[in-house]
Amino acid sequence: METIIKITCSDQKGLVHQITGVLFEQKVNVTQTNEFVVEESERFFMRISFTGDCDIPFIQSSLQKFLPLDAKIEIIPPIQKKVVVLVTKEHHCLGDLLIKNQFQDMPFQIQAVVGNHQVLQPLCEQFNIPFYFISADGMEREAHEKLVSEKIDAFSPDLVVLAKYMRILSPAFASKYLGKMVNIHHSFLPAFIGANPYKQAFERGVKIIGATAHFVTDDLDEGPIICQEIVPVNHTLTAKDMSKAGKEVEKIVLSKALKLVLEDRVFIHQNKTILFE
Amino acid sequence: METIIKITCSDQKGLVHQITGVLFEQKVNVTQTNEFVVEESERFFMRISFTGDCDIPFIQSSLQKFLPLDAKIEIIPPIQKKVVVLVTKEHHCLGDLLIKNQFQDMPFQIQAVVGNHQVLQPLCEQFNIPFYFISADGMEREAHEKLVSEKIDAFSPDLVVLAKYMRILSPAFASKYLGKMVNIHHSFLPAFIGANPYKQAFERGVKIIGATAHFVTDDLDEGPIICQEIVPVNHTLTAKDMSKAGKEVEKIVLSKALKLVLEDRVFIHQNKTILFE
Amino acid sequence: METIIKITCSDQKGLVHQITGVLFEQKVNVTQTNEFVVEESERFFMRISFTGDCDIPFIQSSLQKFLPLDAKIEIIPPIQKKVVVLVTKEHHCLGDLLIKNQFQDMPFQIQAVVGNHQVLQPLCEQFNIPFYFISADGMEREAHEKLVSEKIDAFSPDLVVLAKYMRILSPAFASKYLGKMVNIHHSFLPAFIGANPYKQAFERGVKIIGATAHFVTDDLDEGPIICQEIVPVNHTLTAKDMSKAGKEVEKIVLSKALKLVLEDRVFIHQNKTILFE
Amino acid sequence: METIIKITCSDQKGLVHQITGVLFEQKVNVTQTNEFVVEESERFFMRISFTGDCDIPFIQSSLQKFLPLDAKIEIIPPIQKKVVVLVTKEHHCLGDLLIKNQFQDMPFQIQAVVGNHQVLQPLCEQFNIPFYFISADGMEREAHEKLVSEKIDAFSPDLVVLAKYMRILSPAFASKYLGKMVNIHHSFLPAFIGANPYKQAFERGVKIIGATAHFVTDDLDEGPIICQEIVPVNHTLTAKDMSKAGKEVEKIVLSKALKLVLEDRVFIHQNKTILFE
Repeated sequence: METIIKITCSDQKGLVHQITGVLFEQKVNVTQTNEFVVEESERFFMRISFTGDCDIPFIQSSLQKFLPLDAKIEIIPPIQKKVVVLVTKEHHCLGDLLIKNQFQDMPFQIQAVVGNHQVLQPLCEQFNIPFYFISADGMEREAHEKLVSEKIDAFSPDLVVLAKYMRILSPAFASKYLGKMVNIHHSFLPAFIGANPYKQAFERGVKIIGATAHFVTDDLDEGPIICQEIVPVNHTLTAKDMSKAGKEVEKIVLSKALKLVLEDRVFIHQNKTILFE
Repeated sequence: METIIKITCSDQKGLVHQITGVLFEQKVNVTQTNEFVVEESERFFMRISFTGDCDIPFIQSSLQKFLPLDAKIEIIPPIQKKVVVLVTKEHHCLGDLLIKNQFQDMPFQIQAVVGNHQVLQPLCEQFNIPFYFISADGMEREAHEKLVSEKIDAFSPDLVVLAKYMRILSPAFASKYLGKMVNIHHSFLPAFIGANPYKQAFERGVKIIGATAHFVTDDLDEGPIICQEIVPVNHTLTAKDMSKAGKEVEKIVLSKALKLVLEDRVFIHQNKTILFE
Repeated sequence: METIIKITCSDQKGLVHQITGVLFEQKVNVTQTNEFVVEESERFFMRISFTGDCDIPFIQSSLQKFLPLDAKIEIIPPIQKKVVVLVTKEHHCLGDLLIKNQFQDMPFQIQAVVGNHQVLQPLCEQFNIPFYFISADGMEREAHEKLVSEKIDAFSPDLVVLAKYMRILSPAFASKYLGKMVNIHHSFLPAFIGANPYKQAFERGVKIIGATAHFVTDDLDEGPIICQEIVPVNHTLTAKDMSKAGKEVEKIVLSKALKLVLEDRVFIHQNKTILFE
Repeated sequence: METIIKITCSDQKGLVHQITGVLFEQKVNVTQTNEFVVEESERFFMRISFTGDCDIPFIQSSLQKFLPLDAKIEIIPPIQKKVVVLVTKEHHCLGDLLIKNQFQDMPFQIQAVVGNHQVLQPLCEQFNIPFYFISADGMEREAHEKLVSEKIDAFSPDLVVLAKYMRILSPAFASKYLGKMVNIHHSFLPAFIGANPYKQAFERGVKIIGATAHFVTDDLDEGPIICQEIVPVNHTLTAKDMSKAGKEVEKIVLSKALKLVLEDRVFIHQNKTILFE
């Protein structure tokens, strides 16, 4: 199993040389390094994976000695990530994640599923995953989100996954999980922002539809995009057919994005992502 | 070479039986039939291709006898289509079309190229295709369009191709060539409508860019879509790199759309297309 | 729900006119017609879907009156198809099918799963689908296939699905289910025929891998192809990574092919398929 | 303009640290670094691009001091690459390259085109590129290759491009340009090795066809693959239609591969490539 270091800071000459020097001294076995500099913002991003015993606090302090003050350093030990999934009524993404969880196809453990409807409870029970039904009926948004948030926090997850959670989130809720919450949007953003994208796509007569996995921010459908994929369509498809075809893509895109995030391959920079695949 | 019949009318029972009966009597050799009914609008579309001698006026009058009054019947003899191309400064789509024209890769003959800048004149001359420079400098839109329109009309083309013609068209100009003018838009519509889509795409941090070929209507970037294709991008691409990657897709999409239109495989229905591939 | 007619026969003039005439007389509501003629073999294929009450034996006999003697006519009432799935150890395709079965995402009912290993039994039990373990250990191929075949036949399925059933089939077994058995092959056929295609792909250094759903014939990996899809790969993937990436595609391709077959949109002609999508 | 360093050697700890140290001392501005270790062969690959004045011989000797003896170091100054193109009769790839050459869309200068048929001479003349006709009629393979080789060598090209050069090459000829000759193969290798792949694809009834750009080795169609792309097909396409659809993909794949090679982003390792995109 690999330890991962993620570093981002303002760019300066010699960073790669200096950072790799710290690991060279530790005699660990570097398996992959990736780095990228965003030119406009002069921001440096680096990911290093390595195996072998190491002194994490020593690495941390060695790096801090020469890195710029604005540096953000993460040293991530090889421990499986914990995930909480939020759902509404649609089963396709959840079903895929439950199977992958059971057979350990993904580097995560699903701790719990929280739903604002009850229909997916039996599916979770089939997989022996706790399901918490928190209805939003007759509640203010903030009150409902407070309950959901308490339930999430009870599991201290590394990541919250919105697997077709069809609720608009308050800015406060989104901010609370900034960089730790991934959503699957059922369109090829920024096309068809908002409600019922497949109906919009059908009415516009597009020849391709898609899906987008993105981090959630307080700006609806505007968070940093992680993955997008598409599927060709034609005039014979109704809006409902498009929705069906889209679900298959949603499943794939969400799963692909989660793998990247859980392997610590994704950096957020402003409203974009940098992926070290 | 094949003769093509295109029919659209309000739907009623027995249309396929009746229409194919007319051709059966004519003893022609039907090579392909396609039909589709749009359910919401109860509109029937049919394309038939056939070989063999036939009496076109007789077929036309036979069909009119039983088809609904709103029927639009086109019987298209196997004659090569004439095309006029409008350009500005970018060479990639034009270059592709000129080569395909010279080697007869496409079912068209390019009659002339009209440019509002002069930079592509030498390229046209290399291919021995007349280039007409009609500058828009210091002119009102209508005055400029009048000149362009006169030049187009001098060639009585079957189709006008906007191969990166970077001018906003007046509704009058667009209406004049309704259903006979195809544009290539440098984005995956309806994402990034308007100017500089690659810069928009770069700033949004999308992971896929694309291009769209569509019929021109008086509603900018909103005409019926014929073809769309995409290319994956990532954080290492600048806006300029995206534009470069996009040009390859634009070329492909435009060429694919033109082939379909010129083979009479495209019907326009409201703001959508029906493609019989 | 729609009734489907599938007709194939040697081509002759007027077939579409005559066939649609029979349905016109029956006053049913035709929702879609597709036809295609294979030129080399002069073979005609037609699929018609319609709604409304009809006299199936009368349609059958009316068609037989004028169709060539070699005509194969199928009139398929709107009844859900029964499916038996064969598996070995891999869960990804089976998992996807079980979820789709439970939520009726596909036009089928899974009657039973038969495995030559026991590992997928618990998964089937979670979904309340009977699992039959028929080990091949120490058995002759024919003896094992006899048991499998008896189990399949006990359910009189419309279709047998090999969802990563990793056994080589005897010609007799393949022939028995000719046209009624679909396999997912873990490569982009005809590339990497035979065992361990991902290892082969890795060693060849390909930049794209894929999967193929095909009808099973007695010629291993040579049956008529229904669907193929691909996924890009690069030098950073190990053979195992490729296998993982491939599994996602296998899942999609199998599911897509099954939908087409179960909707009676697929004709087999020699060693190819004709798809009316 | 950027200088590029390409290094490959047997792997050992600290390479990235040591190599970047040399450039840090030179005070150049590193714009991109990529490195990869092939695990089975324990082989290290690194590409670094940088801007700024530097002492190339000093960098070379500094690197040699600590790199393993088997290290191959290339320091490539920012000079435009020279290319010679070999063709037979098909115009689509050549046409695309000529347009890109004229408008400087690609980092190369086409010095000359050599053809074993004369049909593409006029096209080259339109673009003012020298065309050399070297017929193979009545000649032994070696004698013909000797003439072709002399013509190529007269231009000392950095890269030789086989743009649908339909001749089988002798091992001697292939070896002479090892790592410096790129071919476009009209199939999705390793499917349909050998002659007439579109006919093979048609007869097999595949649902996807493709093209492959690869380095030429003495093992026909088995050289290291650089790029592959595909296009979906169906039963309505004849072998000729497939060939037409394939040509569009061939054009794209060849152009994409050439860009990568000419930007020094491609390493050859055994019979595979490592691409630093």
